[in-house]
Amino acid sequence: MREACEVCPPTRKVTFLSMSPQIGPLEFLKETKSKIDAYLLDFLPKHHERPEVCRLYEMMRDYPMRAGKMLRPAFCLLICEAFGGNLDDAFNTAAALELLQNWLLIHDDIEDGSDLRRGEPCLHQKHGIPMAINVGDALHCKMWELLNRNADLLGYELAFRILSEFTHLSNQVVEGQHIELSWVRDNRWNLSEEDYWIMCVQKAASYTCITPCRLGAIIAGATKEKVDRFIDIGMNLGVAFQIRDDVLNLIGEEGTYGKEIAGDISEGKRTLVLIHLFNACTKIEARRLIAIMDKPREEKREDEIREVLHLMKKYKSIQYAHERSKELVEKACAKFNQEFAYLPESRAKEIFLHLIHFVIEREY
Amino acid sequence: MREACEVCPPTRKVTFLSMSPQIGPLEFLKETKSKIDAYLLDFLPKHHERPEVCRLYEMMRDYPMRAGKMLRPAFCLLICEAFGGNLDDAFNTAAALELLQNWLLIHDDIEDGSDLRRGEPCLHQKHGIPMAINVGDALHCKMWELLNRNADLLGYELAFRILSEFTHLSNQVVEGQHIELSWVRDNRWNLSEEDYWIMCVQKAASYTCITPCRLGAIIAGATKEKVDRFIDIGMNLGVAFQIRDDVLNLIGEEGTYGKEIAGDISEGKRTLVLIHLFNACTKIEARRLIAIMDKPREEKREDEIREVLHLMKKYKSIQYAHERSKELVEKACAKFNQEFAYLPESRAKEIFLHLIHFVIEREY
Repeated sequence: MREACEVCPPTRKVTFLSMSPQIGPLEFLKETKSKIDAYLLDFLPKHHERPEVCRLYEMMRDYPMRAGKMLRPAFCLLICEAFGGNLDDAFNTAAALELLQNWLLIHDDIEDGSDLRRGEPCLHQKHGIPMAINVGDALHCKMWELLNRNADLLGYELAFRILSEFTHLSNQVVEGQHIELSWVRDNRWNLSEEDYWIMCVQKAASYTCITPCRLGAIIAGATKEKVDRFIDIGMNLGVAFQIRDDVLNLIGEEGTYGKEIAGDISEGKRTLVLIHLFNACTKIEARRLIAIMDKPREEKREDEIREVLHLMKKYKSIQYAHERSKELVEKACAKFNQEFAYLPESRAKEIFLHLIHFVIEREY
Repeated sequence: MREACEVCPPTRKVTFLSMSPQIGPLEFLKETKSKIDAYLLDFLPKHHERPEVCRLYEMMRDYPMRAGKMLRPAFCLLICEAFGGNLDDAFNTAAALELLQNWLLIHDDIEDGSDLRRGEPCLHQKHGIPMAINVGDALHCKMWELLNRNADLLGYELAFRILSEFTHLSNQVVEGQHIELSWVRDNRWNLSEEDYWIMCVQKAASYTCITPCRLGAIIAGATKEKVDRFIDIGMNLGVAFQIRDDVLNLIGEEGTYGKEIAGDISEGKRTLVLIHLFNACTKIEARRLIAIMDKPREEKREDEIREVLHLMKKYKSIQYAHERSKELVEKACAKFNQEFAYLPESRAKEIFLHLIHFVIEREY
């Protein structure tokens, strides 16, 4: 159930996408998924005379066909419609956002040594690291190919504007990823909430919220000044999204969540929960925490992971992170309502505001 | 010294690039390198307020600043000039080819488990696999960003034509890479010269020769029909280049060549030399070869590698591969001279023909 937010209207059924009757925000995500899936399945290559290459194609379809949330394409489509744009114009770009997500996940999963993704073994667990790197590269190339289609769909100028959003975004994401990898490699634990914020904005918020919203507005023809308003909104929303992910990793159900529970502790991931704990606990506890967290994934025992979880509960770090994500979402909502009060009420605007809450309410 | 070729003029000093006096083909490569290096150094990001990101930037400059041959940018520049185009127009695209080469090498080196690249430890040997994957991705993104600059330099239409050459090329390369990785993973040794040809055209020839030449011609305004003539020329030349690389790996000097000598045997790489050997040797020898070649890199003993080298010499497999690369280069030369006889004699055309021979004469 949705939690109360002071600035947003209560959930109700709305109509959206020309072919659909009255459906709610989660159904919108579902419908977006079925359409983006079909579009990507059609776009991605299927047949090749060499059987080896057919197997590559199969691997390229693997992540895109798993049960992703489709939040990023949905944000792009909804903002485009809310700004008076045409959903059809944004669809190709929304699909490219999904490809971006998929190649990033394949490489991230290798870099983080993850086991599960969307309820199934990670690609490198199924096919080995060398092939998985290459499949990620293959999807990365396909993303740019898809974006090139915008030249025919939207004209050269707009297509190039979208390309430069993607190059800016990609630069942000690899920098954010490098910051996080550096902390792991250097065994850094003395991190502030500001460190987390910077990493998280670059690694997660930029491609989860900021750019999808910006792209929707750009495609609808919004001015640069209006497009830029999504930087602040998207930062708050995107960091809230990541914090919710970190919290779900600790309290979720494996079947629903799709990754190993407390996998972030095994992995040594610097989450807001852990950063809060480090700053709240005693020096003796911090030393004990470091001793556990610094161990390589495979050497961490279950009782050690439980010990970390116990400390997180003792210092209410999970609760702190959850509250923080709620605050950020409310901030994003308030900002959106204030900045875009002039936009006419529409099904798209309404679903967007509801989806914002989904960010902190979701269980997967 | 250059080997004889029936269809090409003998080497002589020529003038090229507006600012340069009379220089030969190797000096042209050197000059191209110094200019592309400076251009890329200027383009790649340098300073960031987060020290972690500064270190990422440093890693991004690592491969591009090593001693690469610059053949790909040189082919692009020379064909552009030979077709009456302006070198300045091709320069940005030539630099993007070099970025392509660098992100591909970083990922290839991980996928192949290589130790040395251009005389130094591979990036993943210096910084670990997770960071190296991310640095490759960072350069990959930067390649598309550089290509987007063509919109201002050359106009939208030409910029998009170049982008679609790069997307086609990237698709080819990842497929070729997947074919090779499949052979390694599946312990496949029963390969024909045709298998090698298909893998090699996709993985190496497409980005070493075919696309650089096509891009030069496209930028100079050549018709599609003329641009397409480079497919056949580039295939022959590109496969010859790869065969030379395979041969150098067996007979080169580590200091000059820049990789570990006979590293391809340790790695289990399917080279033309090895494919020839498998098809030429007795069944008993083939079984012995498989027993050695199937071992993981770290388990192959030095005497086993010497045994494989001995068989290669016994069956003249290295010599066979060398002859094959010579034939292919002569074929490429003949084809070039026949297809482009109408092009006026120029310093660019002359250097291009000389560089073609460098492909099989080089020691690095």
